[in-house]
Amino acid sequence: MPRVTGTKKAILDAALQLAATKGITGTTMDEVAELAGVAKGSLYYNFTNKDQLFEELLEQGVGALAEVLREARSGLHGWAALEALVDTLLGRIQENSALAKLMASEIFRTDRAWQKTLFALRHDALAEFAAAIAESAPDSAARGTHDLMASSVFGAVLMGGLEWLVFEPERTKDEVAATILQALGGQLRPAGS
Amino acid sequence: MPRVTGTKKAILDAALQLAATKGITGTTMDEVAELAGVAKGSLYYNFTNKDQLFEELLEQGVGALAEVLREARSGLHGWAALEALVDTLLGRIQENSALAKLMASEIFRTDRAWQKTLFALRHDALAEFAAAIAESAPDSAARGTHDLMASSVFGAVLMGGLEWLVFEPERTKDEVAATILQALGGQLRPAGS
Repeated sequence: MPRVTGTKKAILDAALQLAATKGITGTTMDEVAELAGVAKGSLYYNFTNKDQLFEELLEQGVGALAEVLREARSGLHGWAALEALVDTLLGRIQENSALAKLMASEIFRTDRAWQKTLFALRHDALAEFAAAIAESAPDSAARGTHDLMASSVFGAVLMGGLEWLVFEPERTKDEVAATILQALGGQLRPAGS
Repeated sequence: MPRVTGTKKAILDAALQLAATKGITGTTMDEVAELAGVAKGSLYYNFTNKDQLFEELLEQGVGALAEVLREARSGLHGWAALEALVDTLLGRIQENSALAKLMASEIFRTDRAWQKTLFALRHDALAEFAAAIAESAPDSAARGTHDLMASSVFGAVLMGGLEWLVFEPERTKDEVAATILQALGGQLRPAGS
């Protein structure tokens, strides 16, 4: 996906900023134009309407996420790949918590104009987790439950990551990654239970 | 928390239905009155404004969740308590997916009038997970990371549960619970890795 620059980037950044606080429905095109510092004519030249703007914003955001996850996993397998994916996803949540919050509130909405695009991209991002899980837990691949596990692991990192940023910001990223990996690495189930 | 009945319940049910599809910001008091089948006078007699309505809705929903989680854990410890909590939370998500979606999109918003109430109740619900985790992984309690782990485990169940309802509805609840517990039970980390 080509990176956007200039006016378009200023508009997308402003829209994300506003939506992270007020939600997409609560954000108006007028506010986006004002925060981005662009004329309304220029805003509508770049994006026909609000639906198209947010479709592109989520497409960029989730598409870029799938890309860095693919890179993080490359050359690694099983648990080692999972460690790299958890660390990378956590890093992205830290760098762009506005997008993480927006994703958390959008990925299960079924009434949005951009639903199909988002579901497809979401699948790409989760596929990286599913592939690592199929390697480290071959049973799950055989039963076809690796997609469901991937979603759970993604949810663990997303919610753990947002908890960190909102409630325990004094921790380091490495500490948070280690904690989530302990939870996923069997520490919660004492041997023999 | 006393259960609400009659008009108040009809209003809260209608508000939840609308917010699950359109978001809280996209829902108007007029629509709530219409769907609930009550006069606007009656709506405003019960709730001063939309903020108060949704604060009460989330208070009821998250409060009731904390209550059933407390009951589910009672008499159990460590991993067995965690198994019961995962199963119970999944059951609640299945019974009330509208509330689960709303919670997923609200728990990290920091601009809401009801933020304090929701943070406190969210803490009560997570505390049940944190207590079970502190028992099954005493190390995490010693390091003070059991709250963060609780959030991750909650996120794993919430996102796994919504994935199930939206994308893999043919699975049974027991199958989904077992899959999430495998992910949390160490199956993802092969011995020696």
